[in-house]
Amino acid sequence: MKTKITLKDIARELEVSISTVSKALKNSEEISRDTKEKIQAFAKLYNYKPNNIAISLKNKRTKNIGVVIPDIVHHFFTTVIRGIEKYANAKGYNVIVCLSEESFDKEVINMEMLANGSIDGFIMSLSSETQAKNDYNHLKEVTEQGIPLVLFDRVTNEVDCDKVIIDDELGGYMATKKLIDEGRKKIALITTDDYLSVSKARAEGYRKALLESNLSLDESKILKLSTMEVDEKSIRHFFNNQEVDAVLCVNEVFTVFSMRLLQEKGLNIPKDVSFIGFTNGLLSEFANPRLTVVAQHGEKMGEISAQMLIEKVESENEEETFQTKILEPTLVVRDSTIN
Amino acid sequence: MKTKITLKDIARELEVSISTVSKALKNSEEISRDTKEKIQAFAKLYNYKPNNIAISLKNKRTKNIGVVIPDIVHHFFTTVIRGIEKYANAKGYNVIVCLSEESFDKEVINMEMLANGSIDGFIMSLSSETQAKNDYNHLKEVTEQGIPLVLFDRVTNEVDCDKVIIDDELGGYMATKKLIDEGRKKIALITTDDYLSVSKARAEGYRKALLESNLSLDESKILKLSTMEVDEKSIRHFFNNQEVDAVLCVNEVFTVFSMRLLQEKGLNIPKDVSFIGFTNGLLSEFANPRLTVVAQHGEKMGEISAQMLIEKVESENEEETFQTKILEPTLVVRDSTIN
Repeated sequence: MKTKITLKDIARELEVSISTVSKALKNSEEISRDTKEKIQAFAKLYNYKPNNIAISLKNKRTKNIGVVIPDIVHHFFTTVIRGIEKYANAKGYNVIVCLSEESFDKEVINMEMLANGSIDGFIMSLSSETQAKNDYNHLKEVTEQGIPLVLFDRVTNEVDCDKVIIDDELGGYMATKKLIDEGRKKIALITTDDYLSVSKARAEGYRKALLESNLSLDESKILKLSTMEVDEKSIRHFFNNQEVDAVLCVNEVFTVFSMRLLQEKGLNIPKDVSFIGFTNGLLSEFANPRLTVVAQHGEKMGEISAQMLIEKVESENEEETFQTKILEPTLVVRDSTIN
Repeated sequence: MKTKITLKDIARELEVSISTVSKALKNSEEISRDTKEKIQAFAKLYNYKPNNIAISLKNKRTKNIGVVIPDIVHHFFTTVIRGIEKYANAKGYNVIVCLSEESFDKEVINMEMLANGSIDGFIMSLSSETQAKNDYNHLKEVTEQGIPLVLFDRVTNEVDCDKVIIDDELGGYMATKKLIDEGRKKIALITTDDYLSVSKARAEGYRKALLESNLSLDESKILKLSTMEVDEKSIRHFFNNQEVDAVLCVNEVFTVFSMRLLQEKGLNIPKDVSFIGFTNGLLSEFANPRLTVVAQHGEKMGEISAQMLIEKVESENEEETFQTKILEPTLVVRDSTIN
């Protein structure tokens, strides 16, 4: 196997970011002319071809599926993998998992590696950095080469491919509506910055439910954290300065951490404050009290993603049509809300 | 890439298990002569070569590491992956993860797939089924072909390779000692069947601590579950029939589930019953009360595994020497024990 030059190699050699190389090779206007010329010349010199990637042709099936996900600490992604494995294994496919760890560069590197003949197609959920950068050239390159791609959960309109999402706006709406129906008036939302597509949609559902119920929308009741990790300091600061009677959080760790914090302040859950989180995982199941959550049906999402991908991989049809499947979330009512 | 016949193909064609094929090709005495002859003839006919596997030679580095682990639901394995990624990425290696899902067959299939030129070496933790079967031919084949292998956590003496383990007996001992020092007399152990090497070692530590302290060893206080999953019925039945004042569990989910069960019976943790679990993960951190745990230093284990593997991959030395590194567990004291 002759080593081929990759975006990563070019970036390292020229001391620029992978994103810059990717954009320069697409002749993006975001990159200065000087830089573009330098990168394009280097790529030409070392014979860089984006279609290195296209070694896996339809008639050379590997029976492997590449999955690239942001992390495996959040229960949601582990359940999606379980669903992918279940469907793919039954169809005789193996599953290879790579983690982007929320990094754009790692996402690109993993895709380059897997696309090099190891797999028949990709199932992916975008890293937060990729969504923040809004740079999808690495995905477009793959689809342009005819490698099937299914995006799930964190998707983008910028890439034409099959997609599986959950109606996150509906999830945010249902959860907030449940809290309003309990008589809660001061409903906080712990979320992330809007660049993360799922957080943005959940926040929209939250706003919609409040406005519909003629409750005022108090922006100071919304805490936007910069990542999906628990930022203890910001959360403590928020609750020290906000009076709340209900809290909606966009992931499990935000929920269990916030709940513990209010319990430590002597508040009773759900008597004083109700809690609803996103993702029906182990943390929610074993929290005390057990959490009311918006279930995202990760395993189902994984199965559907695998099914859509394998259909594309095995299809003889040259004409490309793409579907977006939208799953409905479910509210699982447990003991952190008043029932 | 010409499709090569694999153990999986032979097993499917002849309608026998992968384990049987593997053993028959090694001429194992466990397999009947008839079956062996049939399998060996078939393998010969289709030109099966175990050294298909050896495409990845030292001078053809892929800069990829294959990781095969039992699952990603248990926090411990996700932290090990984090450690592997951290060290490997810093050295310019990518990490590919495959799950055996505790299945011997899936472990074999994943190894065959990855060994086919995709990776420079393996980091693995054995599936429970592999440990129960005690069949390690698929590992021996890999090491005999000169592909570096590092086993971590769930290892076996049957294979010569580098290993990283934690002193699980010491972990079980330290935890039990802590409970004895609190004055506990009726200490239960929730574990799995002994085939799982780590559970066996932890149970030995538990026994040792009890015997040293002249506490009688009451076998009815030990619950052995058949898998690492929560078996609600068995755990309920156990606690309905046992009076306990302390509980040691070999994983996080056993601990949080058992603790909730006793809390539902109106018992106070840690006043009435102390709890210690294995693995310092999110469930332990966010449990209520927060759990006292035996920390297994998964991330460290991952880093060391990656370091040992990459040293072997990059070594020019032909002579093979193998090391076993033993990490010491740490007791992290929180609120589920009396301090």
